[in-house]
Amino acid sequence: MTKNTIVKADVNAPAVTEILAHFVINHPSKGWSDAVDEQAHRTLANWTGCAIGASHHEPVEAALRAVMMLEPAPQASILGRTERVDIANAALINGISSHTFDYDDTHLKTIIHPAGPVASALMALSELLNSSGREVMDALVLGIEVSCRVGNSIYPDHYDRGWHITGTTGILGAAAACSRLLKLSAEQTQMALGIAASQPVGLREQFGTMTKPLHPGAAAKTGLMAALMAKQGFTASARALEAPRGLIQVISDKCDWKEITEGLGLNWESALNTYKPFACGIVIHPSIDGCVQLRNQHNLKPEQIEEVRLKVHSLVIELTGKKTPKKGLEGKFSVYHSCAAGLIYGKAGEHEYSDAVVQDPAVIALRDKVQAVIDDSIGEAAADITVLTKDGKQHHILIEHAIGSLERPMSNEQLKTKFMDQVAAVIGQGAADQAWQRAMNFGR
Amino acid sequence: MTKNTIVKADVNAPAVTEILAHFVINHPSKGWSDAVDEQAHRTLANWTGCAIGASHHEPVEAALRAVMMLEPAPQASILGRTERVDIANAALINGISSHTFDYDDTHLKTIIHPAGPVASALMALSELLNSSGREVMDALVLGIEVSCRVGNSIYPDHYDRGWHITGTTGILGAAAACSRLLKLSAEQTQMALGIAASQPVGLREQFGTMTKPLHPGAAAKTGLMAALMAKQGFTASARALEAPRGLIQVISDKCDWKEITEGLGLNWESALNTYKPFACGIVIHPSIDGCVQLRNQHNLKPEQIEEVRLKVHSLVIELTGKKTPKKGLEGKFSVYHSCAAGLIYGKAGEHEYSDAVVQDPAVIALRDKVQAVIDDSIGEAAADITVLTKDGKQHHILIEHAIGSLERPMSNEQLKTKFMDQVAAVIGQGAADQAWQRAMNFGR
Repeated sequence: MTKNTIVKADVNAPAVTEILAHFVINHPSKGWSDAVDEQAHRTLANWTGCAIGASHHEPVEAALRAVMMLEPAPQASILGRTERVDIANAALINGISSHTFDYDDTHLKTIIHPAGPVASALMALSELLNSSGREVMDALVLGIEVSCRVGNSIYPDHYDRGWHITGTTGILGAAAACSRLLKLSAEQTQMALGIAASQPVGLREQFGTMTKPLHPGAAAKTGLMAALMAKQGFTASARALEAPRGLIQVISDKCDWKEITEGLGLNWESALNTYKPFACGIVIHPSIDGCVQLRNQHNLKPEQIEEVRLKVHSLVIELTGKKTPKKGLEGKFSVYHSCAAGLIYGKAGEHEYSDAVVQDPAVIALRDKVQAVIDDSIGEAAADITVLTKDGKQHHILIEHAIGSLERPMSNEQLKTKFMDQVAAVIGQGAADQAWQRAMNFGR
Repeated sequence: MTKNTIVKADVNAPAVTEILAHFVINHPSKGWSDAVDEQAHRTLANWTGCAIGASHHEPVEAALRAVMMLEPAPQASILGRTERVDIANAALINGISSHTFDYDDTHLKTIIHPAGPVASALMALSELLNSSGREVMDALVLGIEVSCRVGNSIYPDHYDRGWHITGTTGILGAAAACSRLLKLSAEQTQMALGIAASQPVGLREQFGTMTKPLHPGAAAKTGLMAALMAKQGFTASARALEAPRGLIQVISDKCDWKEITEGLGLNWESALNTYKPFACGIVIHPSIDGCVQLRNQHNLKPEQIEEVRLKVHSLVIELTGKKTPKKGLEGKFSVYHSCAAGLIYGKAGEHEYSDAVVQDPAVIALRDKVQAVIDDSIGEAAADITVLTKDGKQHHILIEHAIGSLERPMSNEQLKTKFMDQVAAVIGQGAADQAWQRAMNFGR
């Protein structure tokens, strides 16, 4: 890997710290289309579902035990749990849980998971401030815009170097959103962005450990604290983002300032947010999608299936070629298990990647009937699936873009199914339905 | 500025995360010479003095107001104040105050200010754990060793790129020290280092703002929380420091692993710690030192002085050439004011850089008699000073190494004078004397 090219520091960068601060504070409430606002509600609902879904898993339990050593004041909720902690630590914990299943939202241009840092900080702070739903939604859209635009300016160089871009841009999105909610002045918001800029979070080396979901959580906490400090008069460099020794030039050799400034307030990155329909790496989504569609179209039962033939892109085998996964987590790296789960259950949520399902003899039997071959004519976003049944029939489907992609976004109904699948098991069907309604109607 | 050279990722780096974790946990209590231990006490005392000295200044007040919005539990002390906050935020606030005057300790090989992150985290945690003085001193030496050795491995490339190395290495020193104090296992300590590694703090762009002293404070808090999380079973990459996408390779193109591993436990970086005798940039210390020495040797009074002639390195004029400073802070960037203060007061502490002193007509009158010329024969560490008196005498001194340098360390008596000068004004003479004795005798 080549880590860096030689570049000169850019001493003439536009004043993006100031530009973003003014944008965040001065942009009118709901100063965007209904479509952008609808996407923001979908983002909030999906974040809520993911956070509640993982709220009793080990990274959350361990982090919460550590936070409890601080005897925090009961200021804000932890989603899916009864404990309350101070707003900074609520942001931390909810940020961790929302990313624990790797099932949250994705801004595909940058692979940023934007809601984790921004929504986690906002929802905690809104409890203290008793903010209106509309204020929260405004701050959510504006905060995500800051994260994703900064992400656009540095991706892919920054990511290639080893940073987990969700955390490193999330500090800014969270600081921006909390500044808006706190009704800071533009000058204070500039300071909040500057204070956050000195505390980037996230290394890709942590993938596969609990510290991966820590990244959005720590980014949420850092951004929230930066806004609180700016409100109290704490200062930072007014050019903390763009100066030669400011954040962006320090963490990336690509610094495309236009990505931050052009069309600001007109084009909305948050409108491009997507949601994972399946609780695994995006590379096997087309294969699962095809299996689920064939199952539903032909009412396929596992015992009818003779063979499953996949033609896939080489990355599918490279990243998810595990033939005999033993544990739930390993199942996420097995296209064979994932397709078997899709054919049997008609979905591939967190439950389908539990130890119990991965070790289920019926799932293993079908998994062993899945064959995958690399086909150079199949793109990364596609998969070609043929299911042969014992009565000699062949069912075929070509998936060009999986469900959940920008080209085939999940419907609200599909999003709700995903939500209920995660949330009902934790807080019950009725409460889950209420939580869905609340998120989708927040501030309307 | 050239930001980076092209290098390949090093996939064969030694397991420094594991090596440091084992070192921190398994090294015997006071497993070093008396000289190393004495230096650690001087480090603790100097940190205490700086933290108390700045404890009512604006960065501390602003940060504390923000922390108070969280309604923290009264677990630990804020030095020099009556408020108590939770241990994580006590680490934050004490770390901020200890660096607010830029008057703290310096590991000259890396320009790391090692005590800020490490001592601030430790002292807060020790209140909760009721640790012994010896346990704290052991953890202080070991934590500083981790910070400074990682610093040696990446300096100067990492610093040149724009990182404030005090914060970026301080997270690791604080995590290591707190792990030791918590009596974590080596494996847990490895996780603590890994958790901290994802949260580096500090950009040089912030110099001159309150966010500069935030860096050691945030590093202290981050390192402390990382250790608490590791204690509770939170996981991170076992190679979070050395992996190709781990901290060290991500934040520096220079990765000299030998600086971490060679002589570990035999040679002590903490023994190389130094302390600033004057509350300003190190480049004018030789000039002030000379003025103070001439004043004391010849009992010089301001009204006797006709002229002060300095021969200095070009950096002195470049960095501190401000002829007519108006405010206290500007005085720190004026060799003219600094020499006048040295001649009048016999010192140049924080008081001598107050607005009142900088605006004092008597100081201004002497300042205007100071002339400085660049002399290529004078090194960065040196200064040549001649004072002409009205009775026609010339007093001359050549300073080759200023007081406070490795070559001419401050005596304990000089350190105590600096300490009392900062602390007595805040907590009174008697309490200040007790605080000095306590720090110098901690754990003995």
